[in-house]
Amino acid sequence: MNEASKQLPVMTREEVDAFLGQFFPQVGSGRDFIVEAIGPMTARMRLRYAAKFLRPGGTISGPAVFALADVCLYVAILAQIGPVPLALTTNININFLSKPAPRDLLATCRLLKLGKRLAVGEVWLHTDGDDEPVAHATGTYSIPPQP
Amino acid sequence: MNEASKQLPVMTREEVDAFLGQFFPQVGSGRDFIVEAIGPMTARMRLRYAAKFLRPGGTISGPAVFALADVCLYVAILAQIGPVPLALTTNININFLSKPAPRDLLATCRLLKLGKRLAVGEVWLHTDGDDEPVAHATGTYSIPPQP
Amino acid sequence: MNEASKQLPVMTREEVDAFLGQFFPQVGSGRDFIVEAIGPMTARMRLRYAAKFLRPGGTISGPAVFALADVCLYVAILAQIGPVPLALTTNININFLSKPAPRDLLATCRLLKLGKRLAVGEVWLHTDGDDEPVAHATGTYSIPPQP
Amino acid sequence: MNEASKQLPVMTREEVDAFLGQFFPQVGSGRDFIVEAIGPMTARMRLRYAAKFLRPGGTISGPAVFALADVCLYVAILAQIGPVPLALTTNININFLSKPAPRDLLATCRLLKLGKRLAVGEVWLHTDGDDEPVAHATGTYSIPPQP
Repeated sequence: MNEASKQLPVMTREEVDAFLGQFFPQVGSGRDFIVEAIGPMTARMRLRYAAKFLRPGGTISGPAVFALADVCLYVAILAQIGPVPLALTTNININFLSKPAPRDLLATCRLLKLGKRLAVGEVWLHTDGDDEPVAHATGTYSIPPQP
Repeated sequence: MNEASKQLPVMTREEVDAFLGQFFPQVGSGRDFIVEAIGPMTARMRLRYAAKFLRPGGTISGPAVFALADVCLYVAILAQIGPVPLALTTNININFLSKPAPRDLLATCRLLKLGKRLAVGEVWLHTDGDDEPVAHATGTYSIPPQP
Repeated sequence: MNEASKQLPVMTREEVDAFLGQFFPQVGSGRDFIVEAIGPMTARMRLRYAAKFLRPGGTISGPAVFALADVCLYVAILAQIGPVPLALTTNININFLSKPAPRDLLATCRLLKLGKRLAVGEVWLHTDGDDEPVAHATGTYSIPPQP
Repeated sequence: MNEASKQLPVMTREEVDAFLGQFFPQVGSGRDFIVEAIGPMTARMRLRYAAKFLRPGGTISGPAVFALADVCLYVAILAQIGPVPLALTTNININFLSKPAPRDLLATCRLLKLGKRLAVGEVWLHTDGDDEPVAHATGTYSIPPQP
């Protein structure tokens, strides 16, 4: 869509997955949060359904939805700029649209801006097998100066 | 994309434009804010460039960008549900991504949710003739109970 | 500060704590999230430090901070209006200000508005023993119509 | 409240007002937006009531409320760090709480964080003579590197 989106990521799905698995014990292959795809300025992730993510009423809890949105934005940035010293979330705004069914949750992130100091992206969240979004988030990461 | 998006709007572009022109003197044909298109759960608007919208540095001011995002979301809701008693903005979150050039500004809104009490939408803002987004907003309107 | 803030809560700290403990297994006495105080339009909660809340670098993770802010807002509303059918988070905006140390995290919520359909509040988050805020959140809950 | 809040501003109210009046024709003495007070990490501003700020129903329009919040945050930063090359708004999240009466609107900003690259603040908005808040905003400014 724009100039930046034509740039290719510098890490593959497997590289990002391995990097995350090393630093975030709950993320990566065989874990709760799985990197499914990486593209130019985009990332797609899956939260594997587990009873521990439920809240009363049998829906996926808000903090679990937030966690998936946050890590998906982080993964999209990481894939695009490489495994540099950790970027930090500075702001996330999340709208909850409908109740997520007790199934896997999918997140699709698109970076809106990737500057030297700040990255901004949006994340759509869907229940697996249902096109209706359950939540939408936008967030900003601060990228530390590189040596 | 989802069930709701298959519903057709109940007002045409011309009807929304006339309704706005009646109640908001600055919106509508021949005015600053122009309704360009209406679709299922979507609306597109234009802010005609004028020197009064500039800020130092020669870019369109933040409040002008905000105003266009806000009215575009309002128009998308109005077109979909009809000229009912005025909906009210309850929340807007806006990320400014790049400096808007001193030209017309375009807004494209898509409703993410249209419930009986709340409507949520996102708005992309671009300078006319440039695909790079200058801002992205999400917002919520409260819809008063209908008699 | 305003009219609404003069209204007294209808539930005590113990009642809210018991209600939460019944429905949210991770909240309440002897659990991760503890209701510390209830006041007019306010609530204070504590997240007990545990290694599972850490992220790389030894700080409390963003999703854990988010979870505490979300539940503290919920508790402030619940205490004020009583144990009515569950309110739902519709929007949360959170700014992360500094890295939370690996200690207990405290949240202080103040309701900005408590209408019939929507409640809005802000939440300050601090590490126990440190006045510097680590995060600040604002959020909206939708309150279902009461029978 | 925290270390940063003990730092004194480096500009007086009159200096900020003069700086703004020079660069923003609509801000400053005798204009729509007036700097009323400067303190450590805080600023207070007034939007003088004028019919042009009204929306249907006789309330101050959302974009006018947004504009006051945005400039008040800018003024709080400017007073604290001095008249350096312009900081830019990167994000604003605003909750509209009640309808602002057709009178002067007051904004009170407190900076939550003032880093080298990012400043974050919250702004309360009240109608003059009424303690009930009409809106609450949080926002982030990006501060360009200084030579």
